[in-house]
Amino acid sequence: MSASPYKQLEQEFKRLHAFRGALSLLRWDAAVMMPRGSADVRGEQLAALETEHHALLTAPRITRLLDRAQANIQGLQDWQVANLREMRRQRDHAIATPVSLISRLARATSRAEVRWLEARQQGKFELFAPHLEEVVHLVRDKAALLGQALNLAPYDALVDEFSPGITTADIDAMFKGLSRRLPSLIREAIAAQESRPPAPLSGKFPAGKQRALIVEVMKQIGFPFDRGRLDESEHPFTEGVPGDIRVTTRLDPNDLFSGLLGALHETGHAMYDLGLPQDWRDQPVGRDRGMALEESQSLLMEMIICRSRSFVRYVQPLIVKHFGVGGPEWDNENVYAHLTRVRRGLIRVDADELTYPLHIMLRYELEKQLLSGALAVRDLPDAWNTGMEERLGIRPGNDSEGCLQDVHWAVGSFGYFPSYALGAVIAGQLYESLRSDVPALDEQLARGEFSGLLGWLRTHVHDLGAKVPVQDLLRGATGKPVSASAFIRYVEAKYLEAAPSEAAA
Amino acid sequence: MSASPYKQLEQEFKRLHAFRGALSLLRWDAAVMMPRGSADVRGEQLAALETEHHALLTAPRITRLLDRAQANIQGLQDWQVANLREMRRQRDHAIATPVSLISRLARATSRAEVRWLEARQQGKFELFAPHLEEVVHLVRDKAALLGQALNLAPYDALVDEFSPGITTADIDAMFKGLSRRLPSLIREAIAAQESRPPAPLSGKFPAGKQRALIVEVMKQIGFPFDRGRLDESEHPFTEGVPGDIRVTTRLDPNDLFSGLLGALHETGHAMYDLGLPQDWRDQPVGRDRGMALEESQSLLMEMIICRSRSFVRYVQPLIVKHFGVGGPEWDNENVYAHLTRVRRGLIRVDADELTYPLHIMLRYELEKQLLSGALAVRDLPDAWNTGMEERLGIRPGNDSEGCLQDVHWAVGSFGYFPSYALGAVIAGQLYESLRSDVPALDEQLARGEFSGLLGWLRTHVHDLGAKVPVQDLLRGATGKPVSASAFIRYVEAKYLEAAPSEAAA
Repeated sequence: MSASPYKQLEQEFKRLHAFRGALSLLRWDAAVMMPRGSADVRGEQLAALETEHHALLTAPRITRLLDRAQANIQGLQDWQVANLREMRRQRDHAIATPVSLISRLARATSRAEVRWLEARQQGKFELFAPHLEEVVHLVRDKAALLGQALNLAPYDALVDEFSPGITTADIDAMFKGLSRRLPSLIREAIAAQESRPPAPLSGKFPAGKQRALIVEVMKQIGFPFDRGRLDESEHPFTEGVPGDIRVTTRLDPNDLFSGLLGALHETGHAMYDLGLPQDWRDQPVGRDRGMALEESQSLLMEMIICRSRSFVRYVQPLIVKHFGVGGPEWDNENVYAHLTRVRRGLIRVDADELTYPLHIMLRYELEKQLLSGALAVRDLPDAWNTGMEERLGIRPGNDSEGCLQDVHWAVGSFGYFPSYALGAVIAGQLYESLRSDVPALDEQLARGEFSGLLGWLRTHVHDLGAKVPVQDLLRGATGKPVSASAFIRYVEAKYLEAAPSEAAA
Repeated sequence: MSASPYKQLEQEFKRLHAFRGALSLLRWDAAVMMPRGSADVRGEQLAALETEHHALLTAPRITRLLDRAQANIQGLQDWQVANLREMRRQRDHAIATPVSLISRLARATSRAEVRWLEARQQGKFELFAPHLEEVVHLVRDKAALLGQALNLAPYDALVDEFSPGITTADIDAMFKGLSRRLPSLIREAIAAQESRPPAPLSGKFPAGKQRALIVEVMKQIGFPFDRGRLDESEHPFTEGVPGDIRVTTRLDPNDLFSGLLGALHETGHAMYDLGLPQDWRDQPVGRDRGMALEESQSLLMEMIICRSRSFVRYVQPLIVKHFGVGGPEWDNENVYAHLTRVRRGLIRVDADELTYPLHIMLRYELEKQLLSGALAVRDLPDAWNTGMEERLGIRPGNDSEGCLQDVHWAVGSFGYFPSYALGAVIAGQLYESLRSDVPALDEQLARGEFSGLLGWLRTHVHDLGAKVPVQDLLRGATGKPVSASAFIRYVEAKYLEAAPSEAAA
């Protein structure tokens, strides 16, 4: 009569999925639609739903059902076994941190975020320092508890929340590979580009026309506007659930490409989420395989696919159509040169794909030292500036363009930064296999055909949801666990090509 | 150390308030922003949050706390006592209907709503009849259970959900008063208007300009756009909570007034919600005093204030400014004549303030007969058509403009219709006292000054939240419980004036 423990769990997690979807919509609305003065009201709503979600996930009933389902695991199919594992993973992460610590962290980070914003605006790290200190202490406690519960080193336990199955050892090996080649490659690429600087692309690009271009490209990629939206927000993001997915971008009337590429980055996330297995849509095993893989999908789309000569061949006529631009500066080669410009800059979010991993490396080293206590919060600005000088040869003039530029630490997101670099490297690795499996890729992209790209990603990445660990997924798709070598080969080929005119079609 | 039972209840109901706010946003988004294909996803989210809201409200913990707080009631202040009473009221309503009946009703009404839409499109009542039959059966069961729990007659128990404190006896007395005068008044008003028909107001009114006009008027009334929004939807509505209130309207490029007056109707609701007592914002006693009073606020704003000569004096120059219109047909008197046109029509939502109560009376009689069994579902179309002929002298040509025009019964909303007529009558009653307390009202409105109006409403209605029963609130504000006489005096003065030119300023 009554459903099996496993089936009862599916019902419970279906409900949790609905809660997550509601929470996602509340966040989307807060960033896109909500009146400015209503943040207090929304804060109460988010807190109430998050608390309830946590209570439902950590209820004794779930533990009992998990144990009973585990005892009957031989009766389950492979997707169900994986689903049970992911259910347990979610519960383990949620239950490891006591509610009292969660609420102290919530209060500390909400104070810290406000002070971080002030400190960044005024360039005064000292306004932020005591709050960061408090957050670091609380995150350290959380990492210790999570580590004990998950049998991982504290920092690894934090990483596991965002990128399950990835350890410090994996990250260190990746960064070692990148450090060996990127600094020299950056020098060589900049030297080559300086020998043939692109003609400037100035003009006015009204928001309405930018939007029309972006919608046309997103439709071509396959974004379903009957089950998704494109809006504007201060920073691009993707929210929602498969079935109602919402991407945003920021439209700058002086810069045609920032809005377009922001939207294409988010479309990469969205196409991943939309490609997740339909039958498991409302279950833990049907979710994405963590932030490293999420970033691999957005960076593959934005950095590799859409900053390629093939994509420029497709999109350049659309730019001409929507904006009526002309002249030699709008030729394919000049547009491509703009999309692949390498520059040593201070700001992570503006960085190109060659310098970007160095920004992440610095944050990774510093956040580990902050958590271990090897670096005191008061010494962070110096350590940051010295690190930037060592890695990129430039030094911030003030902390606003230095250690105050990112919100992550203020909101307690330690262990998140590596996902960005892992994402870039995984994107390069997937791309190498994709090219070899889909030889006609360039020609397809030049015609605005994305089915070869997405078909391959569906089979090798999206369809798997969270069924297998990310390293196994990569072994299946590329024959190897995460490794920097394919990414290095990709950027070498792209940035050290002999002469642009030969490569152009 | 631990908080008192009453204080613990305040915490619980604060959380429930946050849930209600989240649910309201999910509904707003579904009607205004959501992609068309995402209704299934939203349905799951709404169901999960509603189920959880119901579970939290009916949990044994709440019952225990209510009993313990009741035992210590002498230690509470008057607002707290009223809050406790409203907490219990919410819990009593929620707990009286078993979850099994709620879910059967939910399934039956969602099927019925789909079939109602089909039936209305095709004008075929027989498609809808078996589903309405099922809904009537289930609502009859619900009314019986609610009535037992609340010690009310079954239909009164349904009314109590929407308009607490109002009984069938109150409604019958009101309708008796209206029936005595309205039919003859309608004849006289139509005859008077036919003797001087207004010049037609045709033109094109682009949505953007309509929006600008509406925003200007709403700002002038005091709608806070930093804590609220105006959007478009198929039907005007108000959602959200004080602190983030969202009104919508429908903009028709061929009709300047439908969008404006739809928005002003909703602004009436919004100003009520915004005026509710700040200190009790997240508690049951801080909510509106039911749908009859809600409708009184929207109808007072739309029908009485904004269809007045004073308001026309304020808004006519704005219409000229925004649309560049001119000519004698845009004179104050001709605009006013359009805003106060009386017509016998078949459709409730298009009705003017004289014929509107007759539409409601018909529905009220029929829904009571359906629930008691005196009227069989299959006989509804005939009973409807006969009733329309008796009351308004017109007969629907088909059921789509007859008994299929409203969604209410399909979704199980029996006992709701009287709120509309009660709202109109209460609006007239409040208006009479308002005019006598604020003698300069007309001059203020003509200058676009709404502070006299809103100040009076704040003191006599909004500030009280749900502290006192609606009849007590009316006694305090007007000296009487709900009665049709003031409304009759108001419509007589408005529609039987001797000559328009004398009354014009």
